[in-house]
Formats: sequence, C-alpha cells, structure tokens
Amino acid sequence: MEREFHRWLKKQAAPAQACDSGSSVSAGSDTGVKLGIGDDAAVIRSFGESGFVVSTDTIADGTHFTIGEHSLQRIGRKGLAVNLSDLAAMGAIPTAALLTLMLPRKFTIDDAKQLFYGFQDLAAEFDVSIIGGDTNRWDGALVVGATIIGREYSEPGITGSTPRIWRLDTARPGDNIFVSGRFGGSILGRHLDFRPRVRLAQQLIRNFEVNAATDASDSLSLDLAAVATASGVGVELETGSIPIAAAAAELSQRDGISPVRHALTDGEDFELILAVPPSETSRLIETFSGQNELTMIGQFVSEQGFWLVDSQGRREPMDPAGYSH
Amino acid sequence: MEREFHRWLKKQAAPAQACDSGSSVSAGSDTGVKLGIGDDAAVIRSFGESGFVVSTDTIADGTHFTIGEHSLQRIGRKGLAVNLSDLAAMGAIPTAALLTLMLPRKFTIDDAKQLFYGFQDLAAEFDVSIIGGDTNRWDGALVVGATIIGREYSEPGITGSTPRIWRLDTARPGDNIFVSGRFGGSILGRHLDFRPRVRLAQQLIRNFEVNAATDASDSLSLDLAAVATASGVGVELETGSIPIAAAAAELSQRDGISPVRHALTDGEDFELILAVPPSETSRLIETFSGQNELTMIGQFVSEQGFWLVDSQGRREPMDPAGYSH
Repeated sequence: MEREFHRWLKKQAAPAQACDSGSSVSAGSDTGVKLGIGDDAAVIRSFGESGFVVSTDTIADGTHFTIGEHSLQRIGRKGLAVNLSDLAAMGAIPTAALLTLMLPRKFTIDDAKQLFYGFQDLAAEFDVSIIGGDTNRWDGALVVGATIIGREYSEPGITGSTPRIWRLDTARPGDNIFVSGRFGGSILGRHLDFRPRVRLAQQLIRNFEVNAATDASDSLSLDLAAVATASGVGVELETGSIPIAAAAAELSQRDGISPVRHALTDGEDFELILAVPPSETSRLIETFSGQNELTMIGQFVSEQGFWLVDSQGRREPMDPAGYSH
Repeated sequence: MEREFHRWLKKQAAPAQACDSGSSVSAGSDTGVKLGIGDDAAVIRSFGESGFVVSTDTIADGTHFTIGEHSLQRIGRKGLAVNLSDLAAMGAIPTAALLTLMLPRKFTIDDAKQLFYGFQDLAAEFDVSIIGGDTNRWDGALVVGATIIGREYSEPGITGSTPRIWRLDTARPGDNIFVSGRFGGSILGRHLDFRPRVRLAQQLIRNFEVNAATDASDSLSLDLAAVATASGVGVELETGSIPIAAAAAELSQRDGISPVRHALTDGEDFELILAVPPSETSRLIETFSGQNELTMIGQFVSEQGFWLVDSQGRREPMDPAGYSH
C-alpha cells in the first residue's frame, strides 16, 4: 500500500523534473522547487539574501483531533494549517511543505488520499508546493506531521535590502499588544478549520514595524507570556479589550468558566500576537479600522510579570495557563 | 514536562541569537544558522547559488526499533542517521536538523533527554545544528521523526560554479553500479548503529562524475530497481560480486535463506548505490583500491528489467523484494 500510495503521491505533488542549471520548476507561483517528490530529498533554490525559514509541527489522534469525529480531509488540512501558522508568526512567506503520515494498519489507500487532499487543498490556497515526506503503516494511532519551509520577507525589487522576520524575544517595554481574530472555545471546531494568518502577516510585515510576534497555540496567556519572558518584559492586558469568540461564550454556558477565562487559557486559537511600537500604533489602527481583524489588548511593560487590568484601571496578577500537550 | 524539556532543549541546541544584518551564528563549522531553537521557526541563511536540500524520515516503536531491546540513545541516534543517509544519497552537505518526538505518557524527562543525546551526538559528529522540532506526549508508542536540511555541493572558491546533486532518475545504460559497504542481516544490529555515508558521498561528489545515486533503505534490490525504473533502464547484477555482510551469513544459518538473498532483499542497509559512467570507473577503482569501501556489482543496461548474472554469465530474472513498512 505504501508503494502504491507513493506512486500516486508523485503524480499529485510538485514534479521532479530535469533541471541542470538552476532553472526553477514551480507549481503556480515561484516557490523555487528544483527537485520535488520522488528522490531521496527535495531541492529548493535559494532566494538571494533571504534566509530559509523552517518549522515542524505534528498532530496526533486523541490529542489534536479525533478519528471518527473529524473527517480525514479536515485532519490533513490541520496538519498543514498549524505549520502555516508558525510561518505567519515569523512574517515569513511559506513556499514548500513535507508531509509525514503514520497510518494505522486498518487505513486504506483511500483514507491516505483523503488526508492528502485536505493537506493539498490548503497548500494550493497558499501556493505551497508539497515536495516530500514519509509514509509508514504501523500498529499505532494516526499521526500527521509536517515540515514547512519558507523564506524571509525582503523588500521586493530592492537588491541588497536586508530581509526581515519577526522574532519572539524582541518585544520592548511600551510596545502595544495587538492580536488577530477572537479567542477561546476553539475546541468546538475552530481548532480544525482555522485559517492560518499568513496573508495578514504578509500585509503587516510589508507595511509596518512590528517588534515581535508569535501565534497563539498553547493559549493567549501562555504565548503572550512566552514573548514577554523571552524579551525580558512584562504584560498588562486590558481584560475588557480581549476579543472573545462566540464559541468561548458557548463553552462558558456549559462549564460555568467565564468567556474571558476561556479566551485567555484555551489552546489552539492560532491567531497572531504582535508587539507594535507606539510610533506605528495609530497608523495600524487606521489601516485596519472597520475590518475587525486586529485588536489592541494591552501593552508590554518593563516590570516582568503578567497582569489583567479592569475597566477601573485596577491591576490583578494572573498565572498564564493553557493547553499543555 | 514538555515545557521543562523545551527549556532544557533550548540550552542544548543551536542558540537563538540576535542577528540583524545576515550575520551567521553557527555551532562549530559554518552551518549558517541565523535563528535556532526557541522561536516559532528557525532561520538558515542561504549559501549563494547552492539550493537547500531537504528530507524527512520517521521511525517508530515496533517497526524500526523496539523499546526495551534498544537503548533510547541508540533510537535517538537512528532518528537522525536515517535522515543523514538520505542527504548522503544526494551528495548533499547536511547542516541542520529538526527533531520531532511523540513520547508515551510514561516517559520521564530523562527518557526524553536520552533520546536527544543520541540524536545530538550524531549531529555533532557531522557538524549538524539542531534548530528546532516538536515534542508531544500522547497515549501511543514512541515515534522519532526528523527533518534534515543541507545544501547542494558546489566547487569551493569558484563563484558562479553550478551546484550539483545526485538524482535518482539519471542513470544511463552502461553505467557501472557501485555500492558502499556490505549488505544483509542489518536486523541483527547494524540497522541501528550504521554510519551514514555522508563523508564518502562528499569525497565522491568532489572528485568523480556520478550519474545517479540513492541509499539502500528498503533493500539493495528494491532501491536499485527504483533507480532503474526512474531512469528508464534495467539492472544486471553479478551475483558473485555482491558484498555480503557477516550478519547475512549468520541469519542464513538460522533461517536457511541464502546469504546473497538476504543481501538482496533485507532492509535498512543504508549504503550508497551509485551509477558510475564507464569513463570514471577505473579511476574510482584505483582511488578506493584496498579500502574496501566501494564494490562494483554490475551495470545498468538499456533493456528494462532486473537480472542476476552468475559466474558462467547466465542471466536469470529477479523480482526485486524487500522491506515494506
């Protein structure tokens, strides 16, 4: 079944074509694939000064999805989406992906194809070439892993311009905290079907100074705290400003935990968290006004720690918490 | 446990250092790591015209190793070794790796560290920086995945020289088939402790024309057939020339299957298979004479198919077979 699936894969994905002198074979846009699926490794050409941005994330049955409850296409899609979210968090441009499948023995080749279709549809949406991977059948549960590859953003048409990325550890005291989207209750479905913020990140890195960024995967509070700790700063959040998802309110009605607590501590929102310098803040707000895509929820402060600030300006410390696999 | 392990990992692996203008932070030799473990993704700078060579391979308990029988260090080492073998098969220079661990719940942080030490020791031996990865605890069995990143070989000191790699699908009729090492019986231990042929591959790509290459992972016959099929050629093997491992003879005594059959069909030898043009053959043999590292075992022929040739020159067709996960 593995060989049959590989033969099928080779036809679906980025072609391995003869390429002697650095000519690039690309699927749609210029993803720079010199050699795709079918060889011992894939080859991607370099993009001038831009570095190569790489991340890997793996999802597993019972932890990140549930076989039977979620379709294989949605699961395959999520396998790529979580990785795209990591590249969005760097402000990087995703170009290529590798897919690893650990398939339960009872899986048919059609099951494997469904996983691949979900992965492939999202890849096509973001002009990402599938350049390789690994498929194994085993006695365990389904595991879907991916490695995503992209490149650093650099000013188009400006040779010698310094490429840039968003790091985690470069937030500064006084930076305003912006987030995309809404938080909490993703377990009700959004954790599978969220749209990775690749395009928003590209719009931002092209037009604005952003001092630091990450994506909320463990939870808004934990990932914010990760930025703060790495940067040696603290966090003040205005509780009333946090954009709360409808799903957080729905969960709250079931479990009695407040919607804002869900927004702060639920995992897998996959929204951007950004440290924006004060000088950029008003322009950012103007640009995005009425679009509901970005919300300012607080600021990084020089005193290390994590605080919630209520509408009367009262500050309460909070222990960041969230989803730990 | 995951967070504690991550904090520990961050101290072990390639540092994430401030780096504004393309300056490179490297661990030992010039691996070009601009941003290592600890952010949402890692960044590697580009190496001029040389493309990035990327591959991923995953090993799992019960399929590629057995917990209890094999130490966690050996398992971690194998997780990287199988990936290095893929880069050796491309003639590429490995520079960086990502490590994915799916840890059974009963695993302690020390268990995770043992896996990492095995991975890290081999990485250090080949000047490979560990730049990221993903760790999850789950109800399933141990899975160790890695993504390896390298660069295409290009002539040192020659700007504008065309980088080169070894493809799978470019063997030509008349090319002689060379292999490294010895084959068969790797299940007795060599499948865990083999040394990936990265250095031999570098020596070869620097000094010789090689038309095509792969590594023997499924079996000598299957991987040779993969080169032949992709290249549109056939294979004639001189049965008497195949270098047989002592372990193949040992297995043969137990199961009655001939040593040469073991050499042809056992999996996980991780030796190089090379298509060498006739014009390079005598120089290659001279260079490696007495070193026992390379053996000529047959040739690629224009007629598609797979044949064994005995000492009397009689040709018998063979169905390639081997280890299918």
